[in-house]
Amino acid sequence: MRDVFHEELDSVFDDLSGIAGRVEDAVRLATSALLTGDAETAERVISADVDIDRARERVEDKAFSLLSLQQPVAGDLRTIVAALRMVSELERMGDLSVHVAKIARLRTPHVAVPEEVRPTMSRMAEVAEDMVAQLLQIITGRDVEAAIELGRDDEEMDQLRRTSFTELLSDDWSHGVEAAVDIALLGRYYERIADHAVSVANRVVFVVTGQNPRAVDV
Amino acid sequence: MRDVFHEELDSVFDDLSGIAGRVEDAVRLATSALLTGDAETAERVISADVDIDRARERVEDKAFSLLSLQQPVAGDLRTIVAALRMVSELERMGDLSVHVAKIARLRTPHVAVPEEVRPTMSRMAEVAEDMVAQLLQIITGRDVEAAIELGRDDEEMDQLRRTSFTELLSDDWSHGVEAAVDIALLGRYYERIADHAVSVANRVVFVVTGQNPRAVDV
Repeated sequence: MRDVFHEELDSVFDDLSGIAGRVEDAVRLATSALLTGDAETAERVISADVDIDRARERVEDKAFSLLSLQQPVAGDLRTIVAALRMVSELERMGDLSVHVAKIARLRTPHVAVPEEVRPTMSRMAEVAEDMVAQLLQIITGRDVEAAIELGRDDEEMDQLRRTSFTELLSDDWSHGVEAAVDIALLGRYYERIADHAVSVANRVVFVVTGQNPRAVDV
Repeated sequence: MRDVFHEELDSVFDDLSGIAGRVEDAVRLATSALLTGDAETAERVISADVDIDRARERVEDKAFSLLSLQQPVAGDLRTIVAALRMVSELERMGDLSVHVAKIARLRTPHVAVPEEVRPTMSRMAEVAEDMVAQLLQIITGRDVEAAIELGRDDEEMDQLRRTSFTELLSDDWSHGVEAAVDIALLGRYYERIADHAVSVANRVVFVVTGQNPRAVDV
């Protein structure tokens, strides 16, 4: 009976990896739409989000039926509850990609990101994408070291956010209020994607070690 | 044994009401700091957030021990998992209030909100505060009708957000980029507080009726 349980638990984690893969696509395509002003790519991200929502529902159903039928305790119980939280956060990362895609769509055929702030914004997008790509590996391989490492990328994201504010609040800013508001909100969305990635990675650390990352890191 | 279980479940919901009360204080005080530029009030919100975080940990511990020791199934199981989600969302609402307070603190002794957009921003804050106050009643009284009603306030919030964008993107905007970025981010924070309030209310509907609000509403 326990073997069936652990097989099903593995299958929940396979589903989480699958969703992380979809989120990786969403972040990459939303960024591509943003930096090229391509409406069709933006639409693809927006319409694909329903697949992430459905995948989340399937994971939730599976997790509930495991909780109900197998009545896990201790570590197994915490693992399933962690999976339920991870799937909510992954879904939220998908929603944030949709927000990025919607700003891209709103400004098309123009590009929302002015040339001179493109390096910072591109780098934010790249860090977010990399973090989601690593998250996929972390979930698939239950990789605690990589999960702890992810927090360092998040520090770069925080630094980029500060740089971005400095750029758009400088006296040289010549792109008006609309572009500044777009950049501020885009920065917020990428920052939140990174925050959720760290949070999901921390849950993997907890599932594997039974401890929160800070305790493991010491 | 079941009676002890339901008593403890009630106590989890009492704790959730208590946290909703703290969130209500946080939203109200953050708004007051924002609209008056009072640094001391902003600091109070920022330093009180740790109490919300600790209260969340206590609810999580209680919910886990209920899950472990009582092995609930069906409705009781779904109620505890709903409580775990509600407490995460309430904590997040506290974090968003801290973000509002931090913008207030950053601009003090000035006020981040220019006079001419004050009506819209004040109304957003008021709607958010009212929604959190109602949420407290909804959780305490397991009030399904009030929970469904809450979605309508959220429609006003969406409308206010659009008005706010129109104001700060108009040709008459004379307050520069910094104030516009503040207003856009503040709007986002209040909107997210409202979204989370609706989400928590929906979970109350689910806990009481076993159905999601859309199904109940029909």
